[in-house]
Amino acid sequence: MEKRLENFGFKNQKEQNPTIRDILETIKENLNKNDQRPVIHLGHGDPSSYPSFRTTPLAQEAVISALRSSQFNGYAPAAGIPAARRAIADYISHDLPYKLSQEDVYLTAGANHGIEILLTVLARPGANVLFPRPGYPLYEARAAFSNLEVRHFDLLPEKGWEVDLDHVESLVDENTIAIVIINPGNPCGNVFTFEHMHKIAETAKRLGVVVIADEVYGHLVFGCNEFMPMGIFGSIVPVLTLGTISKRWLVPGWRLGWIAANDPNGILDKSGIAKCIEKYLNITADSATLIQGAVPEILEKSTKDFFSETVTLLREAGDKCYAKISEIPSLTCPHKPEGAMSTMVKINLPLLEGIDDDMDFSLKLANEESVLVLPGSVVGLKNWLRLSFAVELTTLEDGLERIKAFCLRRAKK
Amino acid sequence: MEKRLENFGFKNQKEQNPTIRDILETIKENLNKNDQRPVIHLGHGDPSSYPSFRTTPLAQEAVISALRSSQFNGYAPAAGIPAARRAIADYISHDLPYKLSQEDVYLTAGANHGIEILLTVLARPGANVLFPRPGYPLYEARAAFSNLEVRHFDLLPEKGWEVDLDHVESLVDENTIAIVIINPGNPCGNVFTFEHMHKIAETAKRLGVVVIADEVYGHLVFGCNEFMPMGIFGSIVPVLTLGTISKRWLVPGWRLGWIAANDPNGILDKSGIAKCIEKYLNITADSATLIQGAVPEILEKSTKDFFSETVTLLREAGDKCYAKISEIPSLTCPHKPEGAMSTMVKINLPLLEGIDDDMDFSLKLANEESVLVLPGSVVGLKNWLRLSFAVELTTLEDGLERIKAFCLRRAKK
Repeated sequence: MEKRLENFGFKNQKEQNPTIRDILETIKENLNKNDQRPVIHLGHGDPSSYPSFRTTPLAQEAVISALRSSQFNGYAPAAGIPAARRAIADYISHDLPYKLSQEDVYLTAGANHGIEILLTVLARPGANVLFPRPGYPLYEARAAFSNLEVRHFDLLPEKGWEVDLDHVESLVDENTIAIVIINPGNPCGNVFTFEHMHKIAETAKRLGVVVIADEVYGHLVFGCNEFMPMGIFGSIVPVLTLGTISKRWLVPGWRLGWIAANDPNGILDKSGIAKCIEKYLNITADSATLIQGAVPEILEKSTKDFFSETVTLLREAGDKCYAKISEIPSLTCPHKPEGAMSTMVKINLPLLEGIDDDMDFSLKLANEESVLVLPGSVVGLKNWLRLSFAVELTTLEDGLERIKAFCLRRAKK
Repeated sequence: MEKRLENFGFKNQKEQNPTIRDILETIKENLNKNDQRPVIHLGHGDPSSYPSFRTTPLAQEAVISALRSSQFNGYAPAAGIPAARRAIADYISHDLPYKLSQEDVYLTAGANHGIEILLTVLARPGANVLFPRPGYPLYEARAAFSNLEVRHFDLLPEKGWEVDLDHVESLVDENTIAIVIINPGNPCGNVFTFEHMHKIAETAKRLGVVVIADEVYGHLVFGCNEFMPMGIFGSIVPVLTLGTISKRWLVPGWRLGWIAANDPNGILDKSGIAKCIEKYLNITADSATLIQGAVPEILEKSTKDFFSETVTLLREAGDKCYAKISEIPSLTCPHKPEGAMSTMVKINLPLLEGIDDDMDFSLKLANEESVLVLPGSVVGLKNWLRLSFAVELTTLEDGLERIKAFCLRRAKK
């Protein structure tokens, strides 16, 4: 039987791009079990286990009421229950120059599932998509799975991680179907200006490509630039927004996200893309109806205080991170974080002794200091690091001190 | 822009097989709004909205404790949190001659997502799979999406819907990778004997095909045959079981299911299939961590009383359904339901006036009697009906009376 099954070639399947989870697992294996200090995790964007990043009691109570009502134990429609779709449409519309209707919103089992759906639906023979570098590696993994060709455009560290629009123009051909824009920036922690977003929209329109706006970290901004949804430019170019309650409400484990079609000119409808998304929703996973049932209350009743506490905490953490990195000669953070939960830090390898590259840095740091960071190559920038600063402040300080100690100890004499 | 996007051919995408949801929507459009009577839904397998089919308070409380603990707000590992995997392994092992370990269990966002994962992973160029007829149409839809060739084997109504094993043998070739076995039967409401399952396992072993055992309705049996998991035969042939809390605990909207590898000989490991499943879990949707956190308590502490109440109710409903159908000359139920939540009923078209086929029957029944049933063609049997009897007993009686009135009114003189 084994022999027969082996003929199907499961062992020769092309290697998937490693995901963040894969790489972090490898790095964790390098931890030194004899180190008595606690392990400090600056490698992933999930602060929900820290007391300071606990969700609002209101969100918990909303789920409890949904549960006790016994109204949300059954299957939901493929696109989600109407009340949740309507609440999300209203939530997004608050920042738009036009109103979304509930038909423009499709619920997903988290934003990762939204990426899965969009890339599955957009994968046509020969088509290609434009992804930012650095970016979020699930895009690459899903595109590879769907045989969708990927072309990377650069984000420019010296310009606050803005999109290199000339680079974008040079990559597009008649088979380019969409461009992914992540704002607030993951992994760079930057926030785009209105003017830059306007330019992106005009460029996309001229090139005829749909914009996928990854706004997973929407509203989590703490620098000079306000958060503005890309949907503002929906009348210039169709924008498919990926959103979620995961980050703003600090509940990534609740797996509730959405795809919103910002497209007042109905181009996604007319081209058949909207219909393809709707059809695919019929045969893919759903978010829990129980959480869907809590969405209206969560979105409508959460208080400004809860949001501003999180943002204040993230600002302080981002500032601390930036300040401490600037004390370390062998590391450079080119842009002070102003949104989301992470920042990109360049390793100046010539200043370090016995470190080959970013993976080597991360493995040795884990082993010697029990600190986990993500090698930049996982998100597209070799010899950089992605530091997540969304942890308890005291933990962050401890972690940064250990990184500093590691770098100073390994500094070339 | 529209023109450019149209060139990608989204409008010409091959039609998906209609899902149960699609067909029921079409039938609902035919309801007569002037009929003052309540609509009776005998078309889908989700009784959770009926008071008699409410889940146990223990399951609700388990989710509430998980929520209040704040320990399950974050991302889970791709295969699920260890405590939930362990609890499910123990739950399944209870009925097996060997023990599963937590590594044998992968959590999914409901059993539908389990189907999605398995068919995605098993889809190899040129491969084919064997599905039962009648069956569950999501299998066909997912296989079509993955370009996996489908071959149908018959279930035999005159033999209590047993698998036609000669038919199975005649369908298999060197590209056949797996056979799907649904027990307790969906849509037929039958339950296989130990002897028949043993024969299926021996046949699968001889042919060298993996068994996918859909046990979504596991333990919901109320006839002579006990429920036995197909995993009992895991040492004969590798069995990938699809399970869920959706049906036994009456919470399909919580979206928690699992894939369990029943394979003491490690054939799935050696052939690379297990690894492919694990890798795919990294890039597909997850069930909510919140529900995962409640799984150990739900599985370990639910009482026999809760289970036996549901089973008693289903028995009574199944009996009522069978008895009433036998009063209607133009309908035949060849096998009294003994498990799950539905049964197949044959329409004797020559005895009816002005009914073209099963779809026509369902449309006219909706219009004239405000009763929804699923045309058998959706599950593979033209001119049959699938009746779901898992509704309130009074509602079921009312619905069956209306079906009887409809059939008598349309009886050929």
